[in-house]
Amino acid sequence: MRLCGSTLSLTILSLVFCGRLACCLSPLDLKLAGITGEKLNAQFEALAALSDTPRPSVTRLVFSDWDVKARRLIKDLMRDAQLKVREDIMGNIFARWEGAEKAAVMSGSHSDSIVLGGAYDGDLGVVGAIAAIKALRVEGFKPQKSIEAVMFTTEEASRFNVPCLGSQGMTGYLNDHTLDNFKDENGSTFREAAARIGYRSSSNQELLRKAKVDPAAVAAFVELHIEQGPLLEKEGIDIGIVEAILAPSLLTLDFSGSGGHGGGMPMSHRNDPCLAASELALKAEQAAFSTKAFDTVVTTGIWKQEPNIFNAIPRNVHLEIDVRDTEGDRRDGVIQQIFEAAEEIAANRKCNLTKEIRYAYPIAKSNPTVLGAIQQSADKLGLSSKKLISRPYHDAAFMAQIAPTAMIFTPCKRGLSHHPEEEISLKHMVDGVKTLAYTIAQLAGSAAPSQAKSEL
Amino acid sequence: MRLCGSTLSLTILSLVFCGRLACCLSPLDLKLAGITGEKLNAQFEALAALSDTPRPSVTRLVFSDWDVKARRLIKDLMRDAQLKVREDIMGNIFARWEGAEKAAVMSGSHSDSIVLGGAYDGDLGVVGAIAAIKALRVEGFKPQKSIEAVMFTTEEASRFNVPCLGSQGMTGYLNDHTLDNFKDENGSTFREAAARIGYRSSSNQELLRKAKVDPAAVAAFVELHIEQGPLLEKEGIDIGIVEAILAPSLLTLDFSGSGGHGGGMPMSHRNDPCLAASELALKAEQAAFSTKAFDTVVTTGIWKQEPNIFNAIPRNVHLEIDVRDTEGDRRDGVIQQIFEAAEEIAANRKCNLTKEIRYAYPIAKSNPTVLGAIQQSADKLGLSSKKLISRPYHDAAFMAQIAPTAMIFTPCKRGLSHHPEEEISLKHMVDGVKTLAYTIAQLAGSAAPSQAKSEL
Repeated sequence: MRLCGSTLSLTILSLVFCGRLACCLSPLDLKLAGITGEKLNAQFEALAALSDTPRPSVTRLVFSDWDVKARRLIKDLMRDAQLKVREDIMGNIFARWEGAEKAAVMSGSHSDSIVLGGAYDGDLGVVGAIAAIKALRVEGFKPQKSIEAVMFTTEEASRFNVPCLGSQGMTGYLNDHTLDNFKDENGSTFREAAARIGYRSSSNQELLRKAKVDPAAVAAFVELHIEQGPLLEKEGIDIGIVEAILAPSLLTLDFSGSGGHGGGMPMSHRNDPCLAASELALKAEQAAFSTKAFDTVVTTGIWKQEPNIFNAIPRNVHLEIDVRDTEGDRRDGVIQQIFEAAEEIAANRKCNLTKEIRYAYPIAKSNPTVLGAIQQSADKLGLSSKKLISRPYHDAAFMAQIAPTAMIFTPCKRGLSHHPEEEISLKHMVDGVKTLAYTIAQLAGSAAPSQAKSEL
Repeated sequence: MRLCGSTLSLTILSLVFCGRLACCLSPLDLKLAGITGEKLNAQFEALAALSDTPRPSVTRLVFSDWDVKARRLIKDLMRDAQLKVREDIMGNIFARWEGAEKAAVMSGSHSDSIVLGGAYDGDLGVVGAIAAIKALRVEGFKPQKSIEAVMFTTEEASRFNVPCLGSQGMTGYLNDHTLDNFKDENGSTFREAAARIGYRSSSNQELLRKAKVDPAAVAAFVELHIEQGPLLEKEGIDIGIVEAILAPSLLTLDFSGSGGHGGGMPMSHRNDPCLAASELALKAEQAAFSTKAFDTVVTTGIWKQEPNIFNAIPRNVHLEIDVRDTEGDRRDGVIQQIFEAAEEIAANRKCNLTKEIRYAYPIAKSNPTVLGAIQQSADKLGLSSKKLISRPYHDAAFMAQIAPTAMIFTPCKRGLSHHPEEEISLKHMVDGVKTLAYTIAQLAGSAAPSQAKSEL
């Protein structure tokens, strides 16, 4: 994994922050009074109402009518924070605060959701970044580096079956294969669906060229997100400081058999793919436990059985198995175990098997300077914090490949996410956004009249 | 199980058949020249074209636009055979040939299909009965008893999740609970959907009263059907003579868990209903094998996983498990095993479990006189035949509760049914329909000028 940016130590960064003059606001002296639970909550509720399904669930697939409305709302919030809004060819939305330097500290997340998801996965990092930047502006902070809020297009894979299309485009990970082969359930490609709401590109090449950002323009990237796991809540920790993000891998497997009438076909004549798939789901769970590593997770999230009627033996079962780990080699070993088990099961049950790795992205490691800024911010706020790993992927996983990056996690109730009952307390909302505001301010550095600069 | 009708022995039946005079046609002297593979095949293809999905599959749910068209085609075939058509309040269609006696020998099947089914399950018995009766008429056969072809409404459970609604209504097995609680995917009850295409009833009571037939009006019932299993083809047998029909039972089970993000939630914190359901599907297979009986069959036909996205741990898996056996007690023992396993699995995996027996109908045993008539018909045609059990259910399973009943099976290719590749050779088509024609003629008996009668 390539990490760009400076290796400036935290010591130097601290010295810089102490170099302020009385007449100007140094990052950690800001009050951040504009960040309140009531205001934030009203914005989350306004976004959550833009959904195909009723509250508490949120269903907002990319480029749907609700997504278009959410984009409008987000741009309004950006303009309300006096930021200059622009959109790229993929619908990624940027809101800029010009600093003394061109290179920007960026912060943001996504606002699309899964089907029947919750109100905070993604939205916290979008609304939070805008609110954090607005609070800095309102208090008269003058950034040395530029600052940008960003909303990434379709982090969720719910429509096009591939995650993080916007951030993949920005960081050069997107390619022809993905643009041509991943389609929504109506057979539309990303480019076709994007064009329908005004993000037009004449070719894959144009899209890929125009979406890509210059790494030199990104001084740092920070993403605020709910944890999507139970650890912070269980331990009573306020802030998670994310040291690494497990980029996802996804396996697809299809078992097929002869089918036949469920009443008519004797048991001994069957080659039932439902039973093969059942064995595999259990083997996949065993493969996860076999590493004895807490960070290995395997999920048989998708199970599509055909014809799926009670009196016909299934003819096909399509599985999608998500495999993640903190160690690339260990993850690949689990994939290998699952594929070997699938071969053996298919042979034993005389089923046909097709299998592929749909994607397997690299691990992302956080940048020490960004991690340090988050730590100092949490400390300043008197919040308990803990270094941890993100097993869910995020746009930050791709941003980390081109810029110094880290993430801030807040606890979420019962660790639930991708779930209508996804929830976060007002206190944790405010803690997260304030930590983000201090982090952005430190990374951007305070400008005139002090000579103090932060550098990355 | 109650069996009505006579116990007249085959010996007496044979004597009756020998009592013919030279001037009239005795059943087994008929030539049946009108029954040809070409004509039958053209009728099956015409019906198969009335489908929501392209050939070779057939998808024709009850009361769909295609079902309405199929009903029209079937009534045309009935009128073409000079039969008098009537329909009952549920849409069961009858075509009558008046004999010397009122009580009728009935034969028929259904013409609705499952989603992505084949062209012969049901249609063979409808088209076959009409063709058989037409052949008898064309040759100048004069029946003592009346003869009726019948098309039952919705033998398949594909729309209302419960099988044989038409024949249940005719035989008094239908009730308020079924009419009120089994709905299609749009929430329509059977009565609401029936009314939309003209089969109107003002109340459940009216429907139940008017649909029920007088058992005394049904002298016998014979149903021609493809085997839906591989045994006849494997042994090279032309005709299956069905001694008993396993009526179906259906279990529904729901495992549910907390869900959560597939990347975020550690393995040890999960209560994943997909894994619980996987264990149960395998236990259900074991329960089927545990009886060591060839006739025990268990099928986990339906698997509905929610939310069914790759990066969320499932929150609910809904299973429907079909259990059949030749022995009621043995079947009930298998159901017991499956339910006990489900409880244990749910407890181990900390999942919630709900379970119910959606229905469990009695076994149907065939009537010896009807079986004998089929046997003589096959013998007369020089066809090899074999007594067997039907594990699939049929409308005959309900008709057997009110009238002397048996079924005729023809081989189907590779035993496939409920499958687009369901197929039957022209020879087996003709063999089946001719066997049916002789059987109907023998059961109805030849009328004037002989005094010979068959009685049941």
